[in-house]
Amino acid sequence: MQKQDLLDCHKRIQPFIHRTPVLSSRLINAEVGAEVFFKCENFQRGGAYKMRGATNAILQLTDEQKRQGVVTHSSGNFAQAVSLGAKTLGVTAHIVMPTSAPEVKKIGVREYEGIIYECEPTLEAREQNANQIAKEIGATLLHPSNDIEVIIGQGTAAIELLEEQPDLNAIFCPVGGGGLIAGSALTAHYFGNNCKVYGGEPFEADDAYRSLLSGRIEGNETTNTIADGLKTTLGSNNFPIIKEHVSGIIRVTEEEIVSAMRLIWERMKIIVEPSSAVTLAALLRDKANFSDQKIGIVISGGNVDLANLPF
Amino acid sequence: MQKQDLLDCHKRIQPFIHRTPVLSSRLINAEVGAEVFFKCENFQRGGAYKMRGATNAILQLTDEQKRQGVVTHSSGNFAQAVSLGAKTLGVTAHIVMPTSAPEVKKIGVREYEGIIYECEPTLEAREQNANQIAKEIGATLLHPSNDIEVIIGQGTAAIELLEEQPDLNAIFCPVGGGGLIAGSALTAHYFGNNCKVYGGEPFEADDAYRSLLSGRIEGNETTNTIADGLKTTLGSNNFPIIKEHVSGIIRVTEEEIVSAMRLIWERMKIIVEPSSAVTLAALLRDKANFSDQKIGIVISGGNVDLANLPF
Repeated sequence: MQKQDLLDCHKRIQPFIHRTPVLSSRLINAEVGAEVFFKCENFQRGGAYKMRGATNAILQLTDEQKRQGVVTHSSGNFAQAVSLGAKTLGVTAHIVMPTSAPEVKKIGVREYEGIIYECEPTLEAREQNANQIAKEIGATLLHPSNDIEVIIGQGTAAIELLEEQPDLNAIFCPVGGGGLIAGSALTAHYFGNNCKVYGGEPFEADDAYRSLLSGRIEGNETTNTIADGLKTTLGSNNFPIIKEHVSGIIRVTEEEIVSAMRLIWERMKIIVEPSSAVTLAALLRDKANFSDQKIGIVISGGNVDLANLPF
Repeated sequence: MQKQDLLDCHKRIQPFIHRTPVLSSRLINAEVGAEVFFKCENFQRGGAYKMRGATNAILQLTDEQKRQGVVTHSSGNFAQAVSLGAKTLGVTAHIVMPTSAPEVKKIGVREYEGIIYECEPTLEAREQNANQIAKEIGATLLHPSNDIEVIIGQGTAAIELLEEQPDLNAIFCPVGGGGLIAGSALTAHYFGNNCKVYGGEPFEADDAYRSLLSGRIEGNETTNTIADGLKTTLGSNNFPIIKEHVSGIIRVTEEEIVSAMRLIWERMKIIVEPSSAVTLAALLRDKANFSDQKIGIVISGGNVDLANLPF
């Protein structure tokens, strides 16, 4: 991927996405001891950055592919994004969701007219179901984090962040399947001014941390984390990018995630999901290393189940 | 009050307040059947529009008055605003708060170095305590909603809203003590293009509705509403302005308030307090009368107790 691929993608998807605001909080800056700029993708269409990658991938399909629809598997945000993106572009979306997916995310998919197929909450079941639908219906399979067009699309949030704050020393992203951090790392490489990229990851699903240590993609035996978007593992397309361009993964406890989420809700008055709070938790845990720096944080989404909050 | 008073006030307080964003939601527009523009004072310093009026009132004090401090009584947002405004300007703030005030608001006051005096949760006890402190310490009493400098200050949120959306057909404000709606009504009168102003009020504390009917300030016998900022009654300075410039008060049920609050949280991903949701609830209840119009809503604040949510 070259710089021009990111620029072309950004131009391509702009009519279909929001340019989300970059917010900051004096009180959080004081607590971190650095200047923190939050790129608020919780305000993105569909409530998450995933709309960027999904839209880019669908826009790249041929007319014939568009007629046959798209299929994906996702616990939630990518499901909503593909449904909304597909609806906007007149394409049918088939969505495989684990039975464990938050109800609010299923409601979102239905509102955007995605067709839901429920499956067991394992990655294997999700992939198998999605592959089967792709085969039977002829729909194009969109991978939520390992499709190269999706990765490039996710990188466009960081393009906008760097347009507003060109001198960021680092960008923090949550790490689930790896699409957002891989895309952001490409963006930081091509558009940043020596801007490093760090991942935040729950101890309870620290596959990316272990993958970078071992040099190969590691799985999670269990994923007992509140950060429901971060349970998936890295992919063959995003892992090489992460290995090359990400400076480190910082792991955080469940308590740190809830505490950071609460801090963002109370101080910034914005609703972010637990997966999004992992980044601030990581920065707070390692704040001594980022003292007085300018830090960008990609707030990945705001789709929480209000009936089931950790407060 | 003349147009110039509002302009002078806006200029005076600008260095000390945030210019808050105006947000909108396609899904909420579709639900209302109108274009709705939310002026997000939940993002204001101190978490509420009250910072505007408090700052204006403190800035108008003489140096001698500033040395002797200020005193006010408030269930929360004005308390935080006076504490923060006073701290910013090097003035001591004495704050009378009812024992029933949400803990999150007391914490806010303490963080901003306001000195808290707890009292019984009645308007009489609040006023008596504040008057006594004014007398004993020599501090200047700032009324949360009936001080003319406070009223003008609160009107500046609507100035910014009309700068961004000059052709609003109406502005909706919550009605508690009447400071915000009186200030907004003056602003709509001087700066709007035939822009009407409506109040939203809980049935459970509908003193403003009844006051406009009877032509004199009515009290509330009980105030069993979740909208804790709207339990106070109108004042002698703001009531004449409201009578002259407000087109109507729309009352809403507690269920409508919680439902509108949930709609804002889920759709806009922003945290608003129940008092702020009263306006959208009022607009939804009466939406047939505002079909296809451009409506501004002043989101008054975002200081909620996350441990005590109605969801």
